[in-house]
Amino acid sequence: MTHIVGHFINGKIINDTAHTQDVYNPSTGEVSKQVALAGKATVEEAVAAAQAAFPEWRKTPVMKRARIMFRYKELLEQNRDKICELIGSEHGKIVHDAAGELQRGIENVEFACGAPEMLKGEYSKNVGPDIDSWSDFQPLGVVAGITPFNFPAMVPLWMFPLAIVCGNTFVLKPSERDPSVCLFLAQLMQEAGLPDGVLNVVNGGKEAVDTLLTDNRVQAVSFVGSTPIAKYIYATATANGKRCQALGGAKNHAIVLPDADLDNVVNSLLGAAFGSSGERCMALSVAVAVGDEIAERMVAGIKEGMKTMKVGPFSDKSNHFGPLITAAHKAKVEGYIASAEEQGATIVVDGRNPSVPGYENGFYLGGTLIDHVTPDMVSYQEEIFGPVLQVVRVKTMQEAMDLINNHIYGNGTCIYTRDGEAARYFADNILVGMVGVNIPLPVPVAYHSFGGWKQSMFGDLGTYGPDGTRFYTRRKTVTQRWPTSEVREGAVFSMPTLG
Amino acid sequence: MTHIVGHFINGKIINDTAHTQDVYNPSTGEVSKQVALAGKATVEEAVAAAQAAFPEWRKTPVMKRARIMFRYKELLEQNRDKICELIGSEHGKIVHDAAGELQRGIENVEFACGAPEMLKGEYSKNVGPDIDSWSDFQPLGVVAGITPFNFPAMVPLWMFPLAIVCGNTFVLKPSERDPSVCLFLAQLMQEAGLPDGVLNVVNGGKEAVDTLLTDNRVQAVSFVGSTPIAKYIYATATANGKRCQALGGAKNHAIVLPDADLDNVVNSLLGAAFGSSGERCMALSVAVAVGDEIAERMVAGIKEGMKTMKVGPFSDKSNHFGPLITAAHKAKVEGYIASAEEQGATIVVDGRNPSVPGYENGFYLGGTLIDHVTPDMVSYQEEIFGPVLQVVRVKTMQEAMDLINNHIYGNGTCIYTRDGEAARYFADNILVGMVGVNIPLPVPVAYHSFGGWKQSMFGDLGTYGPDGTRFYTRRKTVTQRWPTSEVREGAVFSMPTLG
Amino acid sequence: MTHIVGHFINGKIINDTAHTQDVYNPSTGEVSKQVALAGKATVEEAVAAAQAAFPEWRKTPVMKRARIMFRYKELLEQNRDKICELIGSEHGKIVHDAAGELQRGIENVEFACGAPEMLKGEYSKNVGPDIDSWSDFQPLGVVAGITPFNFPAMVPLWMFPLAIVCGNTFVLKPSERDPSVCLFLAQLMQEAGLPDGVLNVVNGGKEAVDTLLTDNRVQAVSFVGSTPIAKYIYATATANGKRCQALGGAKNHAIVLPDADLDNVVNSLLGAAFGSSGERCMALSVAVAVGDEIAERMVAGIKEGMKTMKVGPFSDKSNHFGPLITAAHKAKVEGYIASAEEQGATIVVDGRNPSVPGYENGFYLGGTLIDHVTPDMVSYQEEIFGPVLQVVRVKTMQEAMDLINNHIYGNGTCIYTRDGEAARYFADNILVGMVGVNIPLPVPVAYHSFGGWKQSMFGDLGTYGPDGTRFYTRRKTVTQRWPTSEVREGAVFSMPTLG
Amino acid sequence: MTHIVGHFINGKIINDTAHTQDVYNPSTGEVSKQVALAGKATVEEAVAAAQAAFPEWRKTPVMKRARIMFRYKELLEQNRDKICELIGSEHGKIVHDAAGELQRGIENVEFACGAPEMLKGEYSKNVGPDIDSWSDFQPLGVVAGITPFNFPAMVPLWMFPLAIVCGNTFVLKPSERDPSVCLFLAQLMQEAGLPDGVLNVVNGGKEAVDTLLTDNRVQAVSFVGSTPIAKYIYATATANGKRCQALGGAKNHAIVLPDADLDNVVNSLLGAAFGSSGERCMALSVAVAVGDEIAERMVAGIKEGMKTMKVGPFSDKSNHFGPLITAAHKAKVEGYIASAEEQGATIVVDGRNPSVPGYENGFYLGGTLIDHVTPDMVSYQEEIFGPVLQVVRVKTMQEAMDLINNHIYGNGTCIYTRDGEAARYFADNILVGMVGVNIPLPVPVAYHSFGGWKQSMFGDLGTYGPDGTRFYTRRKTVTQRWPTSEVREGAVFSMPTLG
Repeated sequence: MTHIVGHFINGKIINDTAHTQDVYNPSTGEVSKQVALAGKATVEEAVAAAQAAFPEWRKTPVMKRARIMFRYKELLEQNRDKICELIGSEHGKIVHDAAGELQRGIENVEFACGAPEMLKGEYSKNVGPDIDSWSDFQPLGVVAGITPFNFPAMVPLWMFPLAIVCGNTFVLKPSERDPSVCLFLAQLMQEAGLPDGVLNVVNGGKEAVDTLLTDNRVQAVSFVGSTPIAKYIYATATANGKRCQALGGAKNHAIVLPDADLDNVVNSLLGAAFGSSGERCMALSVAVAVGDEIAERMVAGIKEGMKTMKVGPFSDKSNHFGPLITAAHKAKVEGYIASAEEQGATIVVDGRNPSVPGYENGFYLGGTLIDHVTPDMVSYQEEIFGPVLQVVRVKTMQEAMDLINNHIYGNGTCIYTRDGEAARYFADNILVGMVGVNIPLPVPVAYHSFGGWKQSMFGDLGTYGPDGTRFYTRRKTVTQRWPTSEVREGAVFSMPTLG
Repeated sequence: MTHIVGHFINGKIINDTAHTQDVYNPSTGEVSKQVALAGKATVEEAVAAAQAAFPEWRKTPVMKRARIMFRYKELLEQNRDKICELIGSEHGKIVHDAAGELQRGIENVEFACGAPEMLKGEYSKNVGPDIDSWSDFQPLGVVAGITPFNFPAMVPLWMFPLAIVCGNTFVLKPSERDPSVCLFLAQLMQEAGLPDGVLNVVNGGKEAVDTLLTDNRVQAVSFVGSTPIAKYIYATATANGKRCQALGGAKNHAIVLPDADLDNVVNSLLGAAFGSSGERCMALSVAVAVGDEIAERMVAGIKEGMKTMKVGPFSDKSNHFGPLITAAHKAKVEGYIASAEEQGATIVVDGRNPSVPGYENGFYLGGTLIDHVTPDMVSYQEEIFGPVLQVVRVKTMQEAMDLINNHIYGNGTCIYTRDGEAARYFADNILVGMVGVNIPLPVPVAYHSFGGWKQSMFGDLGTYGPDGTRFYTRRKTVTQRWPTSEVREGAVFSMPTLG
Repeated sequence: MTHIVGHFINGKIINDTAHTQDVYNPSTGEVSKQVALAGKATVEEAVAAAQAAFPEWRKTPVMKRARIMFRYKELLEQNRDKICELIGSEHGKIVHDAAGELQRGIENVEFACGAPEMLKGEYSKNVGPDIDSWSDFQPLGVVAGITPFNFPAMVPLWMFPLAIVCGNTFVLKPSERDPSVCLFLAQLMQEAGLPDGVLNVVNGGKEAVDTLLTDNRVQAVSFVGSTPIAKYIYATATANGKRCQALGGAKNHAIVLPDADLDNVVNSLLGAAFGSSGERCMALSVAVAVGDEIAERMVAGIKEGMKTMKVGPFSDKSNHFGPLITAAHKAKVEGYIASAEEQGATIVVDGRNPSVPGYENGFYLGGTLIDHVTPDMVSYQEEIFGPVLQVVRVKTMQEAMDLINNHIYGNGTCIYTRDGEAARYFADNILVGMVGVNIPLPVPVAYHSFGGWKQSMFGDLGTYGPDGTRFYTRRKTVTQRWPTSEVREGAVFSMPTLG
Repeated sequence: MTHIVGHFINGKIINDTAHTQDVYNPSTGEVSKQVALAGKATVEEAVAAAQAAFPEWRKTPVMKRARIMFRYKELLEQNRDKICELIGSEHGKIVHDAAGELQRGIENVEFACGAPEMLKGEYSKNVGPDIDSWSDFQPLGVVAGITPFNFPAMVPLWMFPLAIVCGNTFVLKPSERDPSVCLFLAQLMQEAGLPDGVLNVVNGGKEAVDTLLTDNRVQAVSFVGSTPIAKYIYATATANGKRCQALGGAKNHAIVLPDADLDNVVNSLLGAAFGSSGERCMALSVAVAVGDEIAERMVAGIKEGMKTMKVGPFSDKSNHFGPLITAAHKAKVEGYIASAEEQGATIVVDGRNPSVPGYENGFYLGGTLIDHVTPDMVSYQEEIFGPVLQVVRVKTMQEAMDLINNHIYGNGTCIYTRDGEAARYFADNILVGMVGVNIPLPVPVAYHSFGGWKQSMFGDLGTYGPDGTRFYTRRKTVTQRWPTSEVREGAVFSMPTLG
């Protein structure tokens, strides 16, 4: 019998078999499991469990809440291998890549351990005569997270540890493509000492999502996914009166200036463009070379570097990256390559139809390098989300910046240069939320926050870090004056010397 | 010829007479002016002016931007009388009340003067080996404010000084009921040295609002008004991809415990309930007495206190409060009083049909006190926004808190007690954003932030203060590593003694 | 052969037997070990090891430094029993008390885990045209800690985890009365992954201290002990150009108002006065009753409560507290009791010469309650540091506050009342650094900071928490402008719409 | 009769003629006034006035205190000419330089206007079950400032506005060389609305200083001056139990790398080395050229630039800088030039005996450029504090950094380069508190803080900005729990839906 990936509600695994969907092992192309698709009633049950757990949890001193996160970090580290196996078998990413994903997730748990400091309110003595005022940052209640397939462990770990340590209770709806790891992450929270009901996981599709977006008990929604869905989530959650942060797609450009350290450019672009098959919202998918001279050398270098790159199943650590998530997605990416070719670009390295012996049905696509891409091409305008690096050639740095600033996305970007002024001008004026200087994947560390600009994020506050803390709390301001006290009987303060 | 209140776009007054609407003097009931109603093209002109002014303004060092606010504070203080006259003649509030409103507004300008400190980003050395990362808080671009009639100076001053000092440019759409003061406030900004186009004012109605909500160049919308409109603004602005904060209505309760200082209760409730005719979103409109004994004494005290209260035209400083904003609104408030009476409440003091000799056509309603109100009454469930104080009697503090927590609004609230534990329990557990302890109008000072809970505010971040600063900026995170430098030629650091 | 407690330098235990001193087991009164007393050369060796370890350690990314603290927390928890045994056998405190001390220490390690957030610097874009400025908080270099006998684990844990996570290297000089636990704490840091030389422990007396105070390589000194020594440390370290924080003695008063919850008063004073034999700088040693009525009831209640209190050896968990640290200290405390008696106070409960069968040579003194103490008595003016609670009776709260404000110490204090106004007035106007409201031992949690006022602390910044972080770092401010770049070739920024 | 510069105590000018000292006009070399030298009794009177004013002032709401600073800023701007005249006539600096000094001082007043935000304490809900804790930053009481001749307006404005807005009262002891401007600054504070006694000015010498350092009522001392005196102040104030920050001398180096923008180097060094006759603790007095090629070009460029530089009386705006402060100081600076010559350096431009027609007795020294200076020369090792720029030639950047890191001072420094890596390495590893990248005088803006390292500052916290705020306040931590309330009668919280 096929294994069913169920839900985790109020501390118990619920194997709901009414509606299910296939879960694939992308490395083999075979269906490996079934995932339960929660209906409205099941989601409401999870919300009810979270609602019921809230009053006690919010009153639990933050130091105690944080201590569960300390314990959780230990458990995540102890279960590293199992987590990476779960990620690889459903997502396809190689173990070193899964381990990196998990490590980034753990860093967010580490940040959550600092909640006592982060949650300090603002205290003002004597805002008026004998009147004090303070602002406290209180949890919201039940909050929901809806997460994508491409980082099945990391993105959930961006959300629920922080939301929970702030005193909220949580309902997580992971991607139905690779749902197993989230269930396991939730069970480890329980093992770390989290009371039942504080964290719940429901698997499902649109019905589950819509239930979360419209249920009055859900106070806030965090989403990471594609831009069209992000727009829908943002519009729907807010129309229902909720606060919402919805992170969408990207088209991340690197500008390569003539004075760049070319070895660094080549080496770091290989990882940034093809790592995790390019299925990252921070993948570096466009290299903009300023001047033909650097363009030629860069393309030659990358082409050379790609010779050593190996695509294959997640279980073989010698592979650089694994399959795409589905056959359909693979076809879509191949379509972008074909369209670039048709629209006049040069396919320098063609990754289509790679040979992966023994895994002929896996959803593989090799690394692909395309030169002479222009802004009018479909492959330039849309997010590809595959192992495809495109090169655009321009004459000036300004032309390169205009390209980026005119693109609809504004997630990440990077410049390669040694020049202080060029880097500073770029970082200041580029309309992108996360900027690298000689760093192709400028994902902010856990104690900063993640968030794109333009169509890459909807909402005021980024995810994780200080922004995440603020998103998961709301300000309550108390202003207080006491009537004169008979108990005190007219104490009059006489100030002696302190020395 | 009737005076036309026009727009202020790119540093110039625009007298657009295509569509206009009457502006009343509520103290006399007469039409005193016409206000221009901007069509789509005019609003777009204002947005274009703001957009054009943005690149220079964002680059202006924050200390220079702040210095314009220092100068603006001086000008507001120098023009106090004129501003109060403009407020009174269109809104109807008495000069002492208008002066209080202006003072609160000036405090927000004072806060804006501290922008250099507030805008500091977060800097992290060595997030990895020789890698630094920092987050900068950059302005958004063009932002819009839509403000209500009841605080025609203060609410705009909550918004535009802070938005502008953060480096944004601004389009303000004030209430069409009392538009003149905003035009003058904008002209004073120009006098303070603000470059043309940074602050623009457009008068208008729904068409103007909708243009702001849908124009792609507008990055963010701040709104204060009623809850139905707030919901519309929030849903529409966010559906258009913008960030939005929308503040709505209120029903602010005071709990009066048996150990309260009754003199303080009576004196402070008189001002909090009837000041500005109750047309404040922080007006204290429900007093919840715990126990009949304190209820009797409180009602008697308030009734006695109301005998000295005087309603009349804004121009007479001896009046305690002035007329309502329109004849229609007056009729609506009278309707609530009638409904309470019909539903079984006791009208202790009836303010209907007050005598205001010489101002018979003014929109006057005297202070009204209603006892034995119950939660099922319409007058309890809805926001009245008039000089009406209702008394609900309960048996326990818990019953009182349940009332508040079950109401759809959560703007302000207050408890009267001497008891530390009761106050602490109340402040912690009440589902209201702004809480007073023996303070009936707990409007946060300018260096905290204003924001209700539940249906009283939509969005993550309150208005003004630290929240406002965060709302008007977005995080950009830069991560930087430099390639090894030939210039440096292998410097190796040898650490000597510091002593 | 007697066991020697040596030093821990550069990752190795150094058994230096040149000069030694007896270490007692206070529960039996017997010498159990010898502690090495470091001479100048040994201390300098430790400083040199710390100095040598500094350059690498300061460059280690803070997240990596913090991860050692995460691991250290786990190790401290795993070694709880052994640590408590080490504390008890040399200090004499009962295991539950030792466990409490350790827990407080662990909380400081937890705080240190949040260093990445705490160490963020301040970043300002455009302080002038195209000029940026940021302040970074860099470690100092070698810092020293000198710690007292009464919290042999907790006080060192206040200091070295935070100093080290900030990037400093450390030389710790623990009390020579109970030195073993510190050596073990240092070895656990090594096990947690700390590089050799980053934390060093030297045992010793005045010569060791003076070497640390005068060595130019030591940048800062943290001290906790008695006020005369604190003054000496502060004056000597600063005269040698170092930064210094020196925490001294205390005389902590509780004011008991007539409306206090007497059960709470009695129960909490028993623990606060007699716990750890009163050998705590936060021990509550003076109860000031306002009015004879509450005084009588309080004294009767405490007297009754003391009947169940048991003094005895550290190894018996049923004891409430253990012996004093030395025979000499026991004699000193007895002297204070005798002097109070002579000066006219009433010995309500006399703890002298308690019976502790089987431990006749232990340094025991039972709980002692003294009433009718007056401010002119020696036992009132000086710190007793023993299980002695004195009661002073006054007529008004003001009289009680004047007592406290006129005392030379200002470490901790407390008020017992239900009245909001009395508590607020007290907290605002009392010249004491750590204030309790119905809390007798108001030791700040690890994420606030510890520090008394007046003669209880010398220096600007308290120990641990945010103050400790600031003490262990120094600000470096960088101001940067880049010359125009040829690389950039005149990029001119044109701002498109963000939407 | 000669004009007497007296004291300002408790709101009144005190013309104390018992002991006086000559005040010169350095531009003419003539005695222009007498300054009163306060004895112990006069200083104690000032301290007593400050002590008496403290209780009311500390209770004044911070927003009201800040408003006096807003008004003070206006008055300083209105009195700009008079202040510059006072500075010039006693110090000798040209009006444009005095105006710059004043502007920097005003920026500190602007920062002080933001005190309501800066003084916010830290608030933690539920540090334990129903226990809250907050830290408040309270003023210290009476604090003293002792300021140097070289910035007679700016350095006092670094101190007293911030100390006072924090709630302290202040006694200022300005330099006896140019005392008049401080008296006037104090009178303007009174005009701005400051209550009498909050700010007091005493003129005097060592007796006045020692009285401040030893008086038990003085809680803290801020000092700026030379290193030997700073050491004395720090040791003495701390030995008397006070907190102290003492800023001393400097030797600020610029490293000029081969890729520097030479025009910027030359232009900015001219101002940084010779401005204000080099009598600035941030003066750039050593240029370290990396490589002979850049050294030659730089020396030639500076020599050329110096041809247009003009020294002369403060009253002539066309002068670039004015006289030195005294004849004795002029002789001392000339001695350093002579010693450099004797020790083998090359005097490229010799500014000794300049011609200033009509001002033959003024204390003039022209700009002097010395090449081939080596670290063993006295003129290199000591602070010159005159218009002398010395050039050291090295072969590598590391050699240049070693020079700086081995010097006893660590106030300011700068690097000239276009290279991101070189700048980053320099800023990170240089043992100097204030670092410029292509900026020769990296004085932090008012919202950062000023402080050198090594022998340039003693104390933990820099002056002005956030550090100054922290220096002038002390943390008080309150921990609060309320006993169960009868008033509340068992309220039990039931959480409804927020939506």
